[in-house]
Amino acid sequence: MRMYDLIMKKRKGEELTTEEINFFVDGFTKGEIPDYQASAMLMAIFFNKMNKRETADLTNAMVESGDKIDLSNIKGVKVDKHSTGGVGDKTSICLTPLVASLGIPVAKMSGRGLGHTGGTIDKLETFKGFSVELTEEQFMENVNKINIAIMGQSGNLVPADKKLYALRDVTATVDNMSLIASSIMSKKLASGADAIVLDVKVGDGAFMKTPETAKELAQEMVDIGKHLGRETIGVISDMDQPLGYAIGNSLEVIEAIELLKGNGPKDLLELTLTIGSNMLLCAKMAESEEEARKMLMENIENGKGLEKLKDFVKAQGGDISPIDDYSKFPQAKYVEKVTSPVDGYITKIHAEAFGLIAMELGAGRATKESEIDLAVGIVLNKKRGEKVNKGDVLAYIHSNNEEKIEKARKSILENIVIEDSYDLNIPLIYDIVR
Amino acid sequence: MRMYDLIMKKRKGEELTTEEINFFVDGFTKGEIPDYQASAMLMAIFFNKMNKRETADLTNAMVESGDKIDLSNIKGVKVDKHSTGGVGDKTSICLTPLVASLGIPVAKMSGRGLGHTGGTIDKLETFKGFSVELTEEQFMENVNKINIAIMGQSGNLVPADKKLYALRDVTATVDNMSLIASSIMSKKLASGADAIVLDVKVGDGAFMKTPETAKELAQEMVDIGKHLGRETIGVISDMDQPLGYAIGNSLEVIEAIELLKGNGPKDLLELTLTIGSNMLLCAKMAESEEEARKMLMENIENGKGLEKLKDFVKAQGGDISPIDDYSKFPQAKYVEKVTSPVDGYITKIHAEAFGLIAMELGAGRATKESEIDLAVGIVLNKKRGEKVNKGDVLAYIHSNNEEKIEKARKSILENIVIEDSYDLNIPLIYDIVR
Repeated sequence: MRMYDLIMKKRKGEELTTEEINFFVDGFTKGEIPDYQASAMLMAIFFNKMNKRETADLTNAMVESGDKIDLSNIKGVKVDKHSTGGVGDKTSICLTPLVASLGIPVAKMSGRGLGHTGGTIDKLETFKGFSVELTEEQFMENVNKINIAIMGQSGNLVPADKKLYALRDVTATVDNMSLIASSIMSKKLASGADAIVLDVKVGDGAFMKTPETAKELAQEMVDIGKHLGRETIGVISDMDQPLGYAIGNSLEVIEAIELLKGNGPKDLLELTLTIGSNMLLCAKMAESEEEARKMLMENIENGKGLEKLKDFVKAQGGDISPIDDYSKFPQAKYVEKVTSPVDGYITKIHAEAFGLIAMELGAGRATKESEIDLAVGIVLNKKRGEKVNKGDVLAYIHSNNEEKIEKARKSILENIVIEDSYDLNIPLIYDIVR
Repeated sequence: MRMYDLIMKKRKGEELTTEEINFFVDGFTKGEIPDYQASAMLMAIFFNKMNKRETADLTNAMVESGDKIDLSNIKGVKVDKHSTGGVGDKTSICLTPLVASLGIPVAKMSGRGLGHTGGTIDKLETFKGFSVELTEEQFMENVNKINIAIMGQSGNLVPADKKLYALRDVTATVDNMSLIASSIMSKKLASGADAIVLDVKVGDGAFMKTPETAKELAQEMVDIGKHLGRETIGVISDMDQPLGYAIGNSLEVIEAIELLKGNGPKDLLELTLTIGSNMLLCAKMAESEEEARKMLMENIENGKGLEKLKDFVKAQGGDISPIDDYSKFPQAKYVEKVTSPVDGYITKIHAEAFGLIAMELGAGRATKESEIDLAVGIVLNKKRGEKVNKGDVLAYIHSNNEEKIEKARKSILENIVIEDSYDLNIPLIYDIVR
C-alpha cells in the first residue's frame, strides 16, 4: 500500500477502505507517513468528505493508535459526557456528582487545555488540596466506592489525534465534520466510555455557528458511536450568550454548587437536566426522560447531589468547607459593578467576547504555561431578553488588577446589546440527536 | 502574511493576490514555509483552481525564485521549442539545426532527466566526443557564430519548480493545469527565451490523454506567455502511436538525419514543418505559415539544414563522420525481425508500451544513475492504418542482450493491434493555439 495512491483515491472522491484508513493513521502516527502527505490527504478529505463508514473507521484507527483505558473493573454502564465547549459552561461540575449520586459510575479523565476559563480540573482545584494525581488503582477504588473520580490524562491516549490536530491546525483543515467528529469521539472512546452524551454548543461563542452545522456534527458523532457499538446521544444547546451568570473558575464553581442547592440559574438547570436525563437513559436507569428528570430533581432537592460533590472533593484531598462558606474560595480584590447606560431590552450578550474578557482578567490560559487566576471573572446580573433601566447593574467584574477594570467594563458594555424591544425566540435546547 | 490564511483563502475558492503568490513561492523555496503547508495549498489549488492571472503570477514567482539566463548578448529573436514528451520524438534533433540554418538563434539549455529513451543531450552524445560542457562564454560565442549551441543546465534555475514538483509528485497534485503549465513555462522563461513554440502531445503515450485536455494545457501556457509578454504558440500533436519509426537514441538520431537529407518519415516531417514554421513566424522571419514552410523545405532540399547539424556537432567536439556513414554509430549486437501473425490493418500502436519496451532494452533511464545504451531500441516497419499480411515485418528489435529479445517481441506483438479494417481518422496536428 502506498500513501500516494490513497491520497489520489480520496482526491478522486473515492471511498477509502478500512485497511487503507488504518494504514494512513497508523503510518502517520508512527512517523512513517510524512506530514506533507498527511496534509494533502486532509485537504482531499476536506473537499471530498468521508462517508459514515470511513468516519467510523477513522475514529477507530485513532482509538487504536495509542493506549486505551480499561474501565471493565468498574461495575455499571460508564456514561461519559462531553461538551464541545462554551463560555460559562460549568455543567460538568454540577452534573457529574448529580448523576453519580443516582448510581452512574463517573470515571473521568480530563486535561487542562487552553481556553477562556480553566478546564474542569482547574475549576475543581478551586477546592484547596484537590488533586487529580491519582494512581490508576486509587482512581478505580474511588469510582467503585463513591461512584465518582477524576484523574489527569495519563498514558498515551489517541496520539494520532494529537498529531493530526496539530497538522490540521496549521493547514486550514480543521473544519471538516468527519475530522472534528472523529477527533472528539476517539478521545471519548479511548477513555473507556460505554455510552456518551454530547453537548454540542451552537452560536457565537461556540465552534459551530449555526443550528444546522451543530446538528450535522452531532449526527456525525452519533453515527460514529452507532458504528462502533457505543450508544451516543447529541444534545444541541445554545451558546449565543454565556451559560448561567458566572464566567471564571471559582465563580462558576459557586454557581454549580448553587444548582445542587436548588438555586441554579434556569438555563444551567435545564441543560443539566437534559444531559443528565439522557445519561440516565443511556445507563438504562430510567424508562423515560420524564422519569429521569424527576430522579435528578429529587437528588437536587434532597441534597444527595451536593453530598456527592462533597464526597468527591474530599476523596481527592480537597477542602470542602467553601461549599458551605463561599468566602473561603479565592476572592478577587476588586468587585466592580457595570451599569447600563440606557433603558431597553438585552437582545444579545456576545458569548465569545465575554470569554475573552474573562481571559484578559486572568481566568484562562492563552498559552500552556499561563497561570490561571481562580478568583477572577465576570458575573452577569441580567441575561438576554431581560428589561433593564439606565443605571441597573448589568454585570460584576471580579479582578485582582485594578488597571484591568476599565478595559473590561468598556468591553462588557460593547458586548451587551440593548435595544428598544426583544422579540427573538432562541431556544436553550435546539434538538436532541439519537 | 501567514501561509495559513493563504491556504484558507484558496480552500474557500478565493483568488490569491500577486503578493500572496510571491510570499508562498518565495517562502517555500527558502524553506520558511514547510512542506505540509505547501502540500495543503497544492491540494486546495487542485480543487479550486487558479485563474489566468494567478497562474501567470505563479509562473513569474517561480522564474524569480532562482537564476535566470541572460541571452541579451545574442542577436535575433530567441525562439525556444518545448515538447511535453512522447515516444520516438526526435524532432529537436532535426528541427533546431534546420531553424538555425534559417537564422534563428538556438541557445538551448537541456537536462538529462528520466524517460523511455534519453533526452536531447543523450541523443547528441551518440556523436562520439560531443560535449555540452561549455562555459557560458563558449556557449554564447557558438550561438553568435553558427547560430546554435546546447549546454547542460547550469546554475540554479527555477529552484521553486524543483521543490514544488518533488512535493506534487508524492502528494497526488501533479495533474492540475495551472501547476503543469507554470512548471513548464517557468523553466522556458528562466532560460531566456523571447518566444516559445510548445509541442503538446496527446494520446496514449503522452501525459495528456485527450485532445480537450491537451488544448486546455496549451491554452494555459499560451496565456501565461501572453501575461508575461513572451509570444507563445501551442501545437497539439498526436502521440497515440510513436512519432516516426525509430525509438532509441542512435536510431532516432539516424531518422532525424534522414529527415535533413530529405528522407524523413511523413509524420516527423509534418511536425517539424509545423513547429518550425511557427518558430519562424514568432521570429518575424516569415509573413505566413506557407512562406515559412517553404523556407524550411528549401533548407532541407539544399542541404543547409544538414550542414548546420554538422557545424553544430563539430563545434561541440563531436565526430560528424557517422552522419554520412551510420555504421559508425553505436550498433546493437542483435537486430531481430518481428513479423505479423495475421493479415489485417494496424489500428493501434500503443505508444507508451513501446516507450517501456525500449527502456527495457536499455534505451532509457529508470533512475538517475542508470546508464543508457545508445545503440538499442525498436524500429517500426509499419505505422497505424497500414495493411499487413501474415509474415510481414512489423518492427525490428535492436538489442545488445539476446535474452531480452523474446520478451520484447512478445510485448511488441501485444501492443500492435491488427484488425480487419481501419477507419479511424486521427490527425497528426490537432490544433494550434496562439
